[in-house]
Amino acid sequence: MIIVFTGNGKGKTTAALGQAVRALGRGRKVLIIQFIKNFESGEHLFFKKIQALSFGTKIKIIPAGKGFVKILGDKLPLSEHKKAAQNALKLAKKEILGGKWELIILDEINVAVGLKLIKAFDILKVITFHKSALVVILTGRGAPKSFIKKADLVTEMKEIKHPFKKGASAQIGVEF
Amino acid sequence: MIIVFTGNGKGKTTAALGQAVRALGRGRKVLIIQFIKNFESGEHLFFKKIQALSFGTKIKIIPAGKGFVKILGDKLPLSEHKKAAQNALKLAKKEILGGKWELIILDEINVAVGLKLIKAFDILKVITFHKSALVVILTGRGAPKSFIKKADLVTEMKEIKHPFKKGASAQIGVEF
Repeated sequence: MIIVFTGNGKGKTTAALGQAVRALGRGRKVLIIQFIKNFESGEHLFFKKIQALSFGTKIKIIPAGKGFVKILGDKLPLSEHKKAAQNALKLAKKEILGGKWELIILDEINVAVGLKLIKAFDILKVITFHKSALVVILTGRGAPKSFIKKADLVTEMKEIKHPFKKGASAQIGVEF
Repeated sequence: MIIVFTGNGKGKTTAALGQAVRALGRGRKVLIIQFIKNFESGEHLFFKKIQALSFGTKIKIIPAGKGFVKILGDKLPLSEHKKAAQNALKLAKKEILGGKWELIILDEINVAVGLKLIKAFDILKVITFHKSALVVILTGRGAPKSFIKKADLVTEMKEIKHPFKKGASAQIGVEF
């Protein structure tokens, strides 16, 4: 099953994290690969903590990006972001085919495709090849058409109101 | 801060659960009151489990509803649903004013208002009275206009594609 969370509104990554919560509650194994993020986020801290408690082999979260791309003061050459995204893609493919996980979240992969760091087809062919009970969630604004076409479930998170528009800044524990 | 997740698409409750994950990762205290649900969901099982581990006073999840209202074979008199929602509302008010929690999720409260089980104003006056660092998330389709007006952040989860439309049924660990 392929789920896509896209759109310009808040709630794409968090909806995926909520799916992780549900799956873990049911005893499923969950892998989260973050394509853009490299920093310690609230979700990273949380899942690392419960992993250390008793969810050892049930949950893994990997921030595999190099941070924001071409925004918010990013000065890293695009080639570096591309290398990181290619490595994240390679890892994602391996883990999908490995068959260990029951839910795999590829966070911000839509953005990575939009920035041409990776190709949509490269991940789709692996997911669609692997037709099992596996649930794959693809998040990020601007989901490529091929993702939407192949997906079983697509939600557009549409921004109706956002405090950033009024000049508020990102809040720790809310935005990351 | 008031956040509203509404719309007909999948991802409203899960986006709120994801916010809970982020907040817990940052050491915040999180309360979840579910207005419609009464059954054991994946999120309920998960948060009960981590509560027992080491998040004892940091997380509480309370399914305070009586199950689906007027759909999916519900035969309970509306008065029973109303009583449950009124009790959930009373609890929510008490906990908001108590000041213990840093994130409070009122899951499906939009639906409870839409079904006239409770009044939007009754919860709004308490939330807006309590102007602090508290984050309140109101979820459910058909959010009342007053919620949207008062909210700092609103996302509409818009259904683009959903397997239920093709006759698939709700999947354990995905839908609940």
